[in-house]
Amino acid sequence: MVAGTHGNEINGPWLLDQWRQHPNFVDSKGLDVQLAIGNPAACAQGRRYLDRDLNRSFRSDLLERASTVPAEADREMLQALALLQQFGPEGQTPCDLVVDLHSTTSAMGNCLVVYGRRPVDLALAALVQHRLGLPIYLHEADAAQQGFLAERWPCGLVIEVGPVPQNVRRSDIVLQTRLALEALMAAITSVRDGTARYPDQVVIHRHLGSLDVPRRRSGDPDALVHPNLQGRDWQPLKAGDPLFINAESKAAVFEGEDGLIPVFINEAAYAEKAIALSFTKREAWPLPKDWKEALANLLG
Amino acid sequence: MVAGTHGNEINGPWLLDQWRQHPNFVDSKGLDVQLAIGNPAACAQGRRYLDRDLNRSFRSDLLERASTVPAEADREMLQALALLQQFGPEGQTPCDLVVDLHSTTSAMGNCLVVYGRRPVDLALAALVQHRLGLPIYLHEADAAQQGFLAERWPCGLVIEVGPVPQNVRRSDIVLQTRLALEALMAAITSVRDGTARYPDQVVIHRHLGSLDVPRRRSGDPDALVHPNLQGRDWQPLKAGDPLFINAESKAAVFEGEDGLIPVFINEAAYAEKAIALSFTKREAWPLPKDWKEALANLLG
Repeated sequence: MVAGTHGNEINGPWLLDQWRQHPNFVDSKGLDVQLAIGNPAACAQGRRYLDRDLNRSFRSDLLERASTVPAEADREMLQALALLQQFGPEGQTPCDLVVDLHSTTSAMGNCLVVYGRRPVDLALAALVQHRLGLPIYLHEADAAQQGFLAERWPCGLVIEVGPVPQNVRRSDIVLQTRLALEALMAAITSVRDGTARYPDQVVIHRHLGSLDVPRRRSGDPDALVHPNLQGRDWQPLKAGDPLFINAESKAAVFEGEDGLIPVFINEAAYAEKAIALSFTKREAWPLPKDWKEALANLLG
Repeated sequence: MVAGTHGNEINGPWLLDQWRQHPNFVDSKGLDVQLAIGNPAACAQGRRYLDRDLNRSFRSDLLERASTVPAEADREMLQALALLQQFGPEGQTPCDLVVDLHSTTSAMGNCLVVYGRRPVDLALAALVQHRLGLPIYLHEADAAQQGFLAERWPCGLVIEVGPVPQNVRRSDIVLQTRLALEALMAAITSVRDGTARYPDQVVIHRHLGSLDVPRRRSGDPDALVHPNLQGRDWQPLKAGDPLFINAESKAAVFEGEDGLIPVFINEAAYAEKAIALSFTKREAWPLPKDWKEALANLLG
């Protein structure tokens, strides 16, 4: 279990801290769990990262450079390598599975993020969705966003909770994070003891692309997220729905396919990534038998 | 008009930027207004400040040191001095009055902050309150918090709007800021042309003190703001109301005088100042004639 991969998302680290203080605070179902702070140096400063986004630093090329020429690596490159050397599949205290706890300023509620289409990730996410009904954001096919922490373990999910400002702790956010985490550990236990009850299908929100806020030539933002869109993550759009509004009250509208679903609307940290929101398509996928077997083999 | 005194409060700077682009965006009533970004270097990094809080850097001792031994001054000490040298009463383009635009993660709504009991500040705040009904937070008698920007001009107010996460722009926050600013400029104009209509009294919330979140010996926070208190800024407390909740669901309760009013509940930036919330007392003060005359003399 990792929290504080982003140093200004402070609810997960508090959950881990209190879990260490009060072992009964989180019901771990007897699993052998290791707790880690992803980016302690960034946490100490209350900043998302120091040199580069740690949750984009698990790219093979960066890990390779950190390993072979450490003197030329920045702090997050070294930290990504250190986490793998400690907890990675070949690490000192190897883990089969990683759960990375995040928060967002967007109204994402309590949800799971899965990277790519690994059968074990999707099977586990399906079990958690069956227990708690959480939406699943499937992030894939985005060349500009690579190198996520969760991809480097044999199985890995993100629990994402919002809205909450950066550097603010809220009891409701901690509670939601804890409930998702407990559902996840209960799901793992059910796979291990052979009692897992899978749904017939898993509902995912497949990433299609992202949109930036309108900008002037200078690069300065020239509009804001439209008030009708703010806070409406997961709610289907239809053509003509307003997306942005400028100082002259003129709206820029959605021109895509009816029914696309916006996520991460107005997330503070994504401005630097030129993302004002992302679009997804909601799909229900059957759960093939070999996905379940792959998860049982990994966790068995 | 100053915005971006804190570099991660980005709604005010956007308002100023758009005001420059579209002069009609804000109704300035023909006043001679100068627009300034308080801490451009911190804004560029999306951080509240670089070396020290600029809005605590207008203390006489710091300004004196920045002026006499600049080589030993940090970046905010130098920036405070630079703002005064440009816009201060003795500056190159001197201003009689400063309005400093802030935002907060607390649910403060749209409000004014006044520092101390200067007649001109209170008379002007009374006029704005009469127009828009905004609550007024009177900050005073707090030895740990000194050196605010607004105190260094003959008249100065803060417009504070929330809740909004740091580094997030929202159209509702920009709108509220603009309405408060326009009411303030309309009030100034009414004083100048002799049409000011004062209320009989001004309702202020007088700062009494602050409370930190419970902490362990290590200094780590051991509880969260109670969900019943979160978002309830400006709502009177009574003895026994829960303030904080810990991991074992035990609440710490309010033990003060019935009717005290909490403000800045769970403001992200105040954690480092050991403030989880502040207490105020709501009081209605009559408006003496000489306060109004002082404001008329200043703005005349």
